Amino acid sequence: MQEQSAQNRWELWTQRPLLALAVVFAVAYAVPIVDTSADHTLTTACTAVEWVVWGAFAADYVVRLALTSDRRRFVRTHWLDLCAVLLPLAQQLKLLRLVSTLLLVGRRARMASQIRMTTYVVGAVVGLLMFGSLAVLSVERESPDGNIRTLGDALWWSFTTMTTVGYGDHAPTTGLGRIIAVGLMLSGIALLGVVTANIAAWFIARFDKDDVEERAQTEAILALTQEVRALRAEVAALRDRPEGALPPGAPPRPAPHPSR
Amino acid sequence: MQEQSAQNRWELWTQRPLLALAVVFAVAYAVPIVDTSADHTLTTACTAVEWVVWGAFAADYVVRLALTSDRRRFVRTHWLDLCAVLLPLAQQLKLLRLVSTLLLVGRRARMASQIRMTTYVVGAVVGLLMFGSLAVLSVERESPDGNIRTLGDALWWSFTTMTTVGYGDHAPTTGLGRIIAVGLMLSGIALLGVVTANIAAWFIARFDKDDVEERAQTEAILALTQEVRALRAEVAALRDRPEGALPPGAPPRPAPHPSR
Amino acid sequence: MQEQSAQNRWELWTQRPLLALAVVFAVAYAVPIVDTSADHTLTTACTAVEWVVWGAFAADYVVRLALTSDRRRFVRTHWLDLCAVLLPLAQQLKLLRLVSTLLLVGRRARMASQIRMTTYVVGAVVGLLMFGSLAVLSVERESPDGNIRTLGDALWWSFTTMTTVGYGDHAPTTGLGRIIAVGLMLSGIALLGVVTANIAAWFIARFDKDDVEERAQTEAILALTQEVRALRAEVAALRDRPEGALPPGAPPRPAPHPSR
Amino acid sequence: MQEQSAQNRWELWTQRPLLALAVVFAVAYAVPIVDTSADHTLTTACTAVEWVVWGAFAADYVVRLALTSDRRRFVRTHWLDLCAVLLPLAQQLKLLRLVSTLLLVGRRARMASQIRMTTYVVGAVVGLLMFGSLAVLSVERESPDGNIRTLGDALWWSFTTMTTVGYGDHAPTTGLGRIIAVGLMLSGIALLGVVTANIAAWFIARFDKDDVEERAQTEAILALTQEVRALRAEVAALRDRPEGALPPGAPPRPAPHPSR
Repeated sequence: MQEQSAQNRWELWTQRPLLALAVVFAVAYAVPIVDTSADHTLTTACTAVEWVVWGAFAADYVVRLALTSDRRRFVRTHWLDLCAVLLPLAQQLKLLRLVSTLLLVGRRARMASQIRMTTYVVGAVVGLLMFGSLAVLSVERESPDGNIRTLGDALWWSFTTMTTVGYGDHAPTTGLGRIIAVGLMLSGIALLGVVTANIAAWFIARFDKDDVEERAQTEAILALTQEVRALRAEVAALRDRPEGALPPGAPPRPAPHPSR
Repeated sequence: MQEQSAQNRWELWTQRPLLALAVVFAVAYAVPIVDTSADHTLTTACTAVEWVVWGAFAADYVVRLALTSDRRRFVRTHWLDLCAVLLPLAQQLKLLRLVSTLLLVGRRARMASQIRMTTYVVGAVVGLLMFGSLAVLSVERESPDGNIRTLGDALWWSFTTMTTVGYGDHAPTTGLGRIIAVGLMLSGIALLGVVTANIAAWFIARFDKDDVEERAQTEAILALTQEVRALRAEVAALRDRPEGALPPGAPPRPAPHPSR
Repeated sequence: MQEQSAQNRWELWTQRPLLALAVVFAVAYAVPIVDTSADHTLTTACTAVEWVVWGAFAADYVVRLALTSDRRRFVRTHWLDLCAVLLPLAQQLKLLRLVSTLLLVGRRARMASQIRMTTYVVGAVVGLLMFGSLAVLSVERESPDGNIRTLGDALWWSFTTMTTVGYGDHAPTTGLGRIIAVGLMLSGIALLGVVTANIAAWFIARFDKDDVEERAQTEAILALTQEVRALRAEVAALRDRPEGALPPGAPPRPAPHPSR
Repeated sequence: MQEQSAQNRWELWTQRPLLALAVVFAVAYAVPIVDTSADHTLTTACTAVEWVVWGAFAADYVVRLALTSDRRRFVRTHWLDLCAVLLPLAQQLKLLRLVSTLLLVGRRARMASQIRMTTYVVGAVVGLLMFGSLAVLSVERESPDGNIRTLGDALWWSFTTMTTVGYGDHAPTTGLGRIIAVGLMLSGIALLGVVTANIAAWFIARFDKDDVEERAQTEAILALTQEVRALRAEVAALRDRPEGALPPGAPPRPAPHPSR
């Protein structure tokens, strides 16, 4: 129990710094993509910052693993975190670093119990839109027959994809760009589902307020309770009567209850 | 309590005039966009009408603020209204005036408690379609490589966007046009959610009518009530019996219940 | 009450012939559009058949109006039927005849209580797809820059529109064609809503089956009933006891319940 | 009952081998489409494997028919299986063999009660995506003006279709390709419905947890049970009292119950 609590305290304590680091990562990821005229020094610095943020999340994973009591169970239930930590080591691909950092941030954000469902979904959608745009832009700009060449086009394309509108005036042409697009589409469907479900739940909750059967039950139970209370008063009256006090044929006592 | 009531009376009293002013705004907004051959006098008159309508809504905000008792709380809960009132002052942009007026109309319409949810959604969708078409038309017609040049095209594009069909035969090419498009897409998703939720709530309400468990409960409660009533009759019979009247071994009395 | 019953009997009796006439209308509508080499005689015959079917539905409306007791109320609640009957008279437009016949068939089909919701929706979708394709084909084939020129293209376009996929390889270019398209899009959204709602209702019904709270209630009520039954046995035992028979300090009687 | 059990045992026993055969079919179907340079021997071998897998499913149908007790009912409730078995015999079309095998696999997978709804839907979607891509690729590659010519394009097109995004950068141009596309679109709508319904059911279940009315009922029933228990104690006390032990006018006994 002590270890569990230490883990919890660590997670609570590192939550805000890690989310701040995620913002730093976002800036370091965006700068070399948006500012194409950036010189080598800036690009190298940004890559270094990305690795530092990834390192912080990796260290967070190791510390949490050290603080937990049942380490085997922790690895089993957090296998996605482990993959996200190990993935960028396997290949020096920029995109993998992005995906794994997004995954780690998402896992930590979901852990924060004070963040409510709707906030989490909205945050995830905004994050996916932003990083999807940047990733597609960096991938498609290299392609000779690509048609997503400015940040504006990339953002516009992300919106038309996520809302499943899909005009087709801009569309990824490379394999990597299309894989990112599939991720955005699936997120869009999930977003649509969450919006619809939210509205539906609200509608149904309002419908249920007027539910007739439920009210009938509550009223039936209340009536029944009334009945039992009256019965108990009757028994109590019966018990307090001094036995043999009234001769046979004595006049009836005054009714202690209206509906005897 | 007196102030609250004064505010309510004001809101009820100004509701219809403000909605009428919204229609006037719509006409004044549409005329210079649809009638491209309109001379300078007409355009100026229309802009003046737009400012007058905006002024009426701004005055409405000020009056409501004056009539409320807790002004700090009013500003906090109506910050969107305040933004909508101040926005067109910051910049003389036609589009900002449109957005802020739409916002103000929407806030007042939502306040009108006699307008039901479905009416509100349908009204919002029709309004967004109409103003979205006009706004995109006025923005895209200026663009050299725009492809939305007539009111028909703009309306058609709005419909394909809001239903998330997105053929791509017409699509905005300017930044402003795309921002309007994103607004239409998000409204379209919300519309889809409301339609689905409405149908789902209706379906589920019908499903629930046949709910077996609920009925079983009500029947169980009724049977229990019957049982308690019989018990009470029993106790009452017991109490009314003159004690010592019957010798041991006397023949059993006829059962007094169920209908004593 | 007699009139109401006469109206009901008429509606039940004419239901099948009217649905059969709707199929005849479908064939008469489709033939001149699909078979472009049809000579004048065939086209005229088909137009005549269309008018006859429309006339049958108009006669049905008149008979129902005659059979009803409260005619003013009938006209008020069936204003859409009246519009559909009068619409084709105002203008000799082929499309209006189609829309009004579809409307009349839909109103009569909805009236048939033995047709279930799902069947009605599926039927409406198939009908709208078929007639939407034919109508768009007949409108767009005339347009010089139209791109829907064969029945295959028209059907394909209808599907991509109704499912809101909207590739944009085919899209209507004329005003009439686009109005038909908007109808198909809205139907598609409604269809999506019905499908989702159906699945959601089924899911929720299954969820509710496992509802813990509900079961806890039923169990609580059953336990309570057991309790009351035991109590009643107790009271009955108390009542049947010959008073004064047992001296104070007598050994306790064997418990008479539960199975006296 | 014996036969029913034999059929059940057969279905349980053949389930895994049949699903393994489905994977073999997938490979045999994919190889000649993906590897266009495959020589005649390989293609013939793959076609043979396809027929063998189809034969295994046909044999499975025959064995299940033989093992069932009420054969007429089996044929009636499994008419889709019969069609799927007979379809490829009627025409030597590769596509029909694919559709019928997919149908048979789907029917057997649905039968496996240990496979849960979500797994089934995800499996069906992945399978439809994969086979839809392969089928469209094999059909469209032959077409002179087709634009789906590589496996990557086909997979990308399948994703944009199933999520109803529909960019239109790739779209089938042949009749067969479009029929496959319609299948994918309808599956996509169903998938969207399942995702939304899943989220909605989860939301509503959470909403219901907080349902006030339900809790009020349970509390009311518990309070009532308390009341009845107290009543029973009262009656028991009344019964165990030695009658005549206390003279009239004796001081009241100590209260046996707190709230008499």
